[in-house]
Amino acid sequence: MAELIVQKFGGTSVANLECLRNVMRIVIETRRQGYDVVVVLSAMSGETDRLINLAKTAVNEPDAREYDALVSIGEQCSIALLSMMLLDQGYPAKSMTGAQAGIITDEIHKKAHIEEIQTEVIWQELRSGRIPVIAGFQGITPEGDISTLGRGGSDTTAVAIAAAMQAKECQIFTDVDGVYTSDPRVVPQARRMASITLEEMLEMASLGAKVLQNRSVIFAGKYKVPLRVLSSFTPGPGTLITYEDITMEKPLVSGIAFNRSEARLTLFGVPATANVPSQILGPLAEANIDIDMILQNSGEGNTVNFTFTVNREDYQQATNILERIAQKLSAKEVTGDNKIAKVSIIGVGMRSHAGVANTVFSTLAQEGIAVHLITTSEIKISVVVDEKYLELAARSLHTVFGLDNELREEFDPVSTLI
Amino acid sequence: MAELIVQKFGGTSVANLECLRNVMRIVIETRRQGYDVVVVLSAMSGETDRLINLAKTAVNEPDAREYDALVSIGEQCSIALLSMMLLDQGYPAKSMTGAQAGIITDEIHKKAHIEEIQTEVIWQELRSGRIPVIAGFQGITPEGDISTLGRGGSDTTAVAIAAAMQAKECQIFTDVDGVYTSDPRVVPQARRMASITLEEMLEMASLGAKVLQNRSVIFAGKYKVPLRVLSSFTPGPGTLITYEDITMEKPLVSGIAFNRSEARLTLFGVPATANVPSQILGPLAEANIDIDMILQNSGEGNTVNFTFTVNREDYQQATNILERIAQKLSAKEVTGDNKIAKVSIIGVGMRSHAGVANTVFSTLAQEGIAVHLITTSEIKISVVVDEKYLELAARSLHTVFGLDNELREEFDPVSTLI
Repeated sequence: MAELIVQKFGGTSVANLECLRNVMRIVIETRRQGYDVVVVLSAMSGETDRLINLAKTAVNEPDAREYDALVSIGEQCSIALLSMMLLDQGYPAKSMTGAQAGIITDEIHKKAHIEEIQTEVIWQELRSGRIPVIAGFQGITPEGDISTLGRGGSDTTAVAIAAAMQAKECQIFTDVDGVYTSDPRVVPQARRMASITLEEMLEMASLGAKVLQNRSVIFAGKYKVPLRVLSSFTPGPGTLITYEDITMEKPLVSGIAFNRSEARLTLFGVPATANVPSQILGPLAEANIDIDMILQNSGEGNTVNFTFTVNREDYQQATNILERIAQKLSAKEVTGDNKIAKVSIIGVGMRSHAGVANTVFSTLAQEGIAVHLITTSEIKISVVVDEKYLELAARSLHTVFGLDNELREEFDPVSTLI
Repeated sequence: MAELIVQKFGGTSVANLECLRNVMRIVIETRRQGYDVVVVLSAMSGETDRLINLAKTAVNEPDAREYDALVSIGEQCSIALLSMMLLDQGYPAKSMTGAQAGIITDEIHKKAHIEEIQTEVIWQELRSGRIPVIAGFQGITPEGDISTLGRGGSDTTAVAIAAAMQAKECQIFTDVDGVYTSDPRVVPQARRMASITLEEMLEMASLGAKVLQNRSVIFAGKYKVPLRVLSSFTPGPGTLITYEDITMEKPLVSGIAFNRSEARLTLFGVPATANVPSQILGPLAEANIDIDMILQNSGEGNTVNFTFTVNREDYQQATNILERIAQKLSAKEVTGDNKIAKVSIIGVGMRSHAGVANTVFSTLAQEGIAVHLITTSEIKISVVVDEKYLELAARSLHTVFGLDNELREEFDPVSTLI
């Protein structure tokens, strides 16, 4: 049999019949290149929201089993339509719901986990020369109830099928043509990366460069599924996510990510005797406020200063909570700033190069940009700067780390078919 | 276990969430009366048309398997929504697709026939105290493909389930509150019938009084499923369709049906040697023109006259065809009239009463109404009159056969619960 490629098309790629026709052309072209293809589809964009809205208008708290039975029809619609189109062009296709494709999940409705894929039925279709067109996002419980994997679950479906069937590649088609060294709207020199490591991809995603659901990337990493992100609208090889530790060949820094929607809060002069972190983080957690960066250091006398960042829309509520805490802990002062931004430098290469941090700070200093906060991980350095300096910081770092001109070597034999 | 009632709600009964809430109340009320209930639903009105339109926009000739996979989601939507509503009110319900309810069909997509209902899964839900809410119109083939029964197939689903589970009654909820002795818009004295025989029901339906799909009525008759037609909007016992030959208790005539959309065509003076019917009916069939009544009798000399009725919208095309045929057969003349109407008197009682025909003709004669055509069957007399006399004919026949005041005795213990 031919080598197998799993192709997943998300909401905007199947937004309407014209988009579906474009998907049809990509699938046919892949077949013509001699590959076997398994297609995984999301619902046409807006359709899942329409169904969720219907459920919420019907009752306040929709039963989870029935909710899944309802929203799963979005994918059933798109797979039937694409199969019709492929058949109409003389390509034998067959739509398969989660149940028909043997995607067995646990019974946690609305966020089920795939437990098993009975790949034999899918193999059977491939052996008969057909193109299985499988509904993403859904499965069936051992009891025969329809389940859904939660939003974005179609990526997980595609990765799980690629893993179970040991596909040559799992291609995730989106509306961007790959992962970029930075956001091109802010850093005009930003370039598409030919490849990125799993860890870098996860850091990029967690820093606002949303391309894939983290859950599906982690899942792909677990099974070492070659994952490629490409655009269904712009031809090109996209970006391949790799798992090999090929640090030697890697540049120091892969990309510059950033996040504008941050706000900083600081509690000054808390007596060092208090268990500051839990006293502060407890009430914030209770109010469902997510904390991003956390810093504690010594202040005047026997006191500590405690700084953290939150999502900008939680800023006012967090300030109110912090002022109550300040009173309770006899702290000196609460300060805050909601006009900040976080810039992050990401790259597996920096693990072995202590000089990266130094380059970051000296570059920013040369541009006259004050750094308010710093956090680091093995493959990432994040700094908080005034929001007005965001573009300047991102561009100068992009340049200094040689990202403007460099495109990592392409090493993807499949890319030519796109 | 309690006695079982199957309740089927059609498109207008589930048109929107408000209608579904009304369906929920009817189901709950039936449960409160102590019955076990199996619910069968159609798609929300307009939904099936929307899906068919989507398929036809996608490709010219949608593959039948994929067409079924697509249009079947309309019912999956309404069963999930109703189940949510019942659960929200504390009534344990469970939506079941055709596949989940074990409705096995043959493989003739778009007009599949139910071959078997694996009732054990439905019984299991009932034994657990749940209300199965089953998708009408759909099933699953032995190969696991989704099939549909063709339009109106939800009635068939309900009847098949009622037959397989030997339900006490199969209740078909529509937007009319039963079968009437005539159309109340034309005959103000028309009354709802408490019961009607299967044969009468079929004649009424074929004469334009569309209440149920004939196919499901015939199916119900085959298995002697007690079938009741009622309104989901107006409370009442509806009309029960019976199978017993209880002619003795029956009135002569059960109802007066009529059809306005008729046109008559006559070919005069065709030489008797020609095989007139096939010479005429062949070309009309090729043009997809349906013929209703047919009459042939002797004309002047050795000629015959041939008369038939067609749907009024086919009148012009049929006239053109007939004029070509007339030339070919050397017929004398073609005449036609598209301002006619057909009035039919229906009743199993007339089998044993030759006087009915006489009463019909003398009544019409007294009113000065000329009868252009007559056809009869064992339980029906149809006459064609000028359309302007339709109301007068229907009302006078309604009165003369005693339908104005008579309401057949109610003999339905279930009726009180509606």
